[in-house]
Amino acid sequence: MAYELHYWDGLQGRGEFVRLTLEQARSPYVDVARGRAEDGLGTGAMLALIESKTEPYIPFAPPFLKDGDLIVPHTANILHYLGPKLGLAPQDDRRYVVHGLQLTIADFVTEVHDTHHPIASRQYYEEQKEASKARATEFLDHRLPKFMRYFERVLTQNPRGDAHLFGDALTYVDLSMFQVIEGLRYAFPRAMKRFDAHYPRLTALHTRVAALPNIEAYLASPRRIPFNETGIFRHYPELDKALR
Amino acid sequence: MAYELHYWDGLQGRGEFVRLTLEQARSPYVDVARGRAEDGLGTGAMLALIESKTEPYIPFAPPFLKDGDLIVPHTANILHYLGPKLGLAPQDDRRYVVHGLQLTIADFVTEVHDTHHPIASRQYYEEQKEASKARATEFLDHRLPKFMRYFERVLTQNPRGDAHLFGDALTYVDLSMFQVIEGLRYAFPRAMKRFDAHYPRLTALHTRVAALPNIEAYLASPRRIPFNETGIFRHYPELDKALR
Repeated sequence: MAYELHYWDGLQGRGEFVRLTLEQARSPYVDVARGRAEDGLGTGAMLALIESKTEPYIPFAPPFLKDGDLIVPHTANILHYLGPKLGLAPQDDRRYVVHGLQLTIADFVTEVHDTHHPIASRQYYEEQKEASKARATEFLDHRLPKFMRYFERVLTQNPRGDAHLFGDALTYVDLSMFQVIEGLRYAFPRAMKRFDAHYPRLTALHTRVAALPNIEAYLASPRRIPFNETGIFRHYPELDKALR
Repeated sequence: MAYELHYWDGLQGRGEFVRLTLEQARSPYVDVARGRAEDGLGTGAMLALIESKTEPYIPFAPPFLKDGDLIVPHTANILHYLGPKLGLAPQDDRRYVVHGLQLTIADFVTEVHDTHHPIASRQYYEEQKEASKARATEFLDHRLPKFMRYFERVLTQNPRGDAHLFGDALTYVDLSMFQVIEGLRYAFPRAMKRFDAHYPRLTALHTRVAALPNIEAYLASPRRIPFNETGIFRHYPELDKALR
């Protein structure tokens, strides 16, 4: 049975990290909320699960993966669950190391989100522009460099070489790092102008992932939703500035 | 060999969720940063690992668990790793459901942190008091109820009864929910006055966990650091208000 991915329609968001892994593995999946109501799919089908009064494993929020009766919520948890099954994570205890890297990416993604929603995720960006400017400045001056220096170090210190964030083969974390850099380039083009000079290994990883045949085909397909201002990575020029 | 828990000295913080699980299981562990430098322990020993230029599995930040050569970072990942070994999580795929609940708690804990640090985690609360007031108000009016309604539903919909967040036996998530409620009572006593009326099942869970003999003994021991204003749960009266 195909995996069911449940995530909001119309944006890449956190669901995109799961899509990239499923696409790279050419694993059959149903992107539930993007399907048609007459097929039992669509946003309504996703919300019915979240709001169910009988489901024992109710998720707090999308994304979640349904595999038979099992419901696995949270991006990093889904990838941790799928990784070994799809050949994109080790089978042994080292998978907790890979999961740890993904959880650090999850924290970073939350900080990206909070650059445009520092006060209230429920409200519009336009209602919290002043705090957004302060938080985005802090993000570009301090947080982005702190996280990216760390991941550049992870590549540098990988005893199996700097081609991958873990070991000597592709894992889902490499795909997620591609998505992070792709998103940062969309949201903060001024800041990202000097990214490759600061983080050459991460930049090379991004280039390699983009050239993977399955990823290249996916990115060119209608399944890849363009970045837009309803997702995590949003381009608000007033929040962008050169890296220090 | 005893597990090594690496976390900042002097605060409960995220490390406390791991301590509660290790204590409930009576599992031997070394709280590295709280040890003495002459024993090769202390904050210096923890930072040496984080800043190591040779370690392949460098963690981004505390807490992390060292089990032999394996380094498992992130609170929820540590609990996911330890849970089945310590009899505090299922052995089968349902452990991803328990991990999902813990990751939702992790997101909630980040939102608690951001009530006093909405702009810059690097700076003092006093430097971001105005944004803190706005974020804390949003937290108490909308986010706390949204998360707690969810967890109350998880108890209600548990097909094995409402004594546990998962299944019919204690898991690490029950211990973590105790810690969340304990922390909220410390940080937001005004808001928490009516918590038990809104969330009776969560309140009962908190009471039951507090009465577990191993937890009771731990809480009365010098190993339990008191809540204070360097941790996640901080009592700033000006941020507290009654729940709506």
